[in-house]
Amino acid sequence: MRTKKISEYETIDFSREDKALLILDQTLLPNEKKILRLVRVCEVWEAIKKLRVRGAPAIGIAAAFGLYLGAEGIDTEDKEVFYRELEGVKGYLASSRPTAVNLFWALKRMWERALELKGEELEQIRKELLEEAFRIRLEDIEMCRKIGEHALTLVKKGDGLLTHCNAGQLATAKYGTATSVMYLGHEKGYDFKIYSDETRPLLQGARLTSFELHEAGMDVTLICDNMAATVMSRGKVQAVFVGADRIAANGDSANKIGTYGLAIMARHFGIPFYICAPSSTVDLNTESGEAIPIEERPDEEVTSMWYERPMVAEGVQVYNPAFDVTPHELITAIITEEGVLYPPYSRSLRG
Amino acid sequence: MRTKKISEYETIDFSREDKALLILDQTLLPNEKKILRLVRVCEVWEAIKKLRVRGAPAIGIAAAFGLYLGAEGIDTEDKEVFYRELEGVKGYLASSRPTAVNLFWALKRMWERALELKGEELEQIRKELLEEAFRIRLEDIEMCRKIGEHALTLVKKGDGLLTHCNAGQLATAKYGTATSVMYLGHEKGYDFKIYSDETRPLLQGARLTSFELHEAGMDVTLICDNMAATVMSRGKVQAVFVGADRIAANGDSANKIGTYGLAIMARHFGIPFYICAPSSTVDLNTESGEAIPIEERPDEEVTSMWYERPMVAEGVQVYNPAFDVTPHELITAIITEEGVLYPPYSRSLRG
Repeated sequence: MRTKKISEYETIDFSREDKALLILDQTLLPNEKKILRLVRVCEVWEAIKKLRVRGAPAIGIAAAFGLYLGAEGIDTEDKEVFYRELEGVKGYLASSRPTAVNLFWALKRMWERALELKGEELEQIRKELLEEAFRIRLEDIEMCRKIGEHALTLVKKGDGLLTHCNAGQLATAKYGTATSVMYLGHEKGYDFKIYSDETRPLLQGARLTSFELHEAGMDVTLICDNMAATVMSRGKVQAVFVGADRIAANGDSANKIGTYGLAIMARHFGIPFYICAPSSTVDLNTESGEAIPIEERPDEEVTSMWYERPMVAEGVQVYNPAFDVTPHELITAIITEEGVLYPPYSRSLRG
Repeated sequence: MRTKKISEYETIDFSREDKALLILDQTLLPNEKKILRLVRVCEVWEAIKKLRVRGAPAIGIAAAFGLYLGAEGIDTEDKEVFYRELEGVKGYLASSRPTAVNLFWALKRMWERALELKGEELEQIRKELLEEAFRIRLEDIEMCRKIGEHALTLVKKGDGLLTHCNAGQLATAKYGTATSVMYLGHEKGYDFKIYSDETRPLLQGARLTSFELHEAGMDVTLICDNMAATVMSRGKVQAVFVGADRIAANGDSANKIGTYGLAIMARHFGIPFYICAPSSTVDLNTESGEAIPIEERPDEEVTSMWYERPMVAEGVQVYNPAFDVTPHELITAIITEEGVLYPPYSRSLRG
């Protein structure tokens, strides 16, 4: 374990020499920057379980390398035994977080690759699985980069950009989704002025987004969620970029709680409001946002988490929805790796 | 010092028997309910300075009783000495918080009353000063009650009401301004469903408003500021009631940061948005909101206050305006003790 600046490498990487998955422990941010070197599958499982690595794409990548590490750890020359044990590793990793879709997607892809390789030597199978995990990671980076390139056509130098929660590099292998335009623009000298909502109650904007953008050398200002209207009213925001957890067929987009209010304010001030997400986030089987279930989380996240002592009297009711759904009519465009999609989304999302 | 339920008496009271100002120490809320019994003028000064009593009306009342306690403490039979020392007490109390307008207003009123009484015996002067302080307190209660009565004509039984920050009983002697409609409605069995924004960064909604409404037996639900759009979109809010720190001649209203965004959301959902404040909050010398200076407060309130450890990386910029200005066109009505004022405010505020 060593400490290193996050901007010196990606959030999640793999060392071929040491056969180790490298992860920035996000539970310690922003107070401590510790890189974990994970060499055993149980360490990868624990890192996902305990949110040391978070964000759907990043979890998928971690699990893919985790399956490879599992394959390395199977001590047998018997191919049948190998595949049986590898399937066990797959099930084990899948049990780390039961709701993250990318986790299952990545493990399924790794398993299917393993099945394709059944005719090969065990050493070759292991080698190819590592290459497949690297491909998943590389494709994620490419996809995020493309989202950023498309988004970059929508902004100009010196723009003020506002984002909510962490749809950043820390949630992916590199660039992030909503933050990709910021990283690519920063490389090209766009001199953005970025505003990051702190994002109550879990403070992803304070702990993660403002941290990673600041580490990358960008001009980032943290605000409380309720300050966005003031910042917008003063002409300091030219565009809002946020991520999405699920996009319905009509364009309604579920994202971190607070996104809906931001979209209403952006509309009020005539500021474009963009959703950034890989096309895999689009769920054509979900007709509209009404069909997207909204997870309600424990009261303690609002009343006592992070605090020295509870900030709310005992007995007060708390409502803590983790997500909200922004109606499609408030979304200026949805940006995926395939391009900038405009309304009507029922048509453009079907591509 | 003893502990008692806040609903059993008002936020700020005075015991004639003990010659003591009774204050609920707001710095300890919601974890501890401690009533302070202040008998010396320096104790009143400290209570105001350290925000043990807060809210412009409550500070004014505390200072008025403080001046009386000062008068009691002047050990002389010489009237000239008495007035000289009383003026010193007035200056001392005025130095406790230099920005709260009601503090100076209340001290000026007490001082003018003292001057009127110059022909009386010292014992009589002291007695009359105590009566004047009681009158200031009583007038505040009456004014808040009237605001509530006017506001009550705008709602119906079972309504969902949303409020922001603490324009509550804890900021006044009783009823509060924005919360007066809730207290009066509760007495009459209106069965409101109340939503209280936690109000970052100082958490007045979490620590104070949800506390006092819950103590009074109301149905109150705490939400993070960024959850208001979701609550509104689900039809759970029939009206928004907030206070004001200053109302310009055109109706633009300065209030706790986050009020502006709430007003935009209320407009989006077609929910009436009401400002509640005594008529003394209206500043006809300030033409519009643009002329109202907005106090920016320390970064630490956002980055580390309340927390076990800082939640933001060092070096990240923070923008922390304490107030915002809601433009008059987003305000459905302004409610003062004089009645419900509708647009155009440039006319109705001049009465």
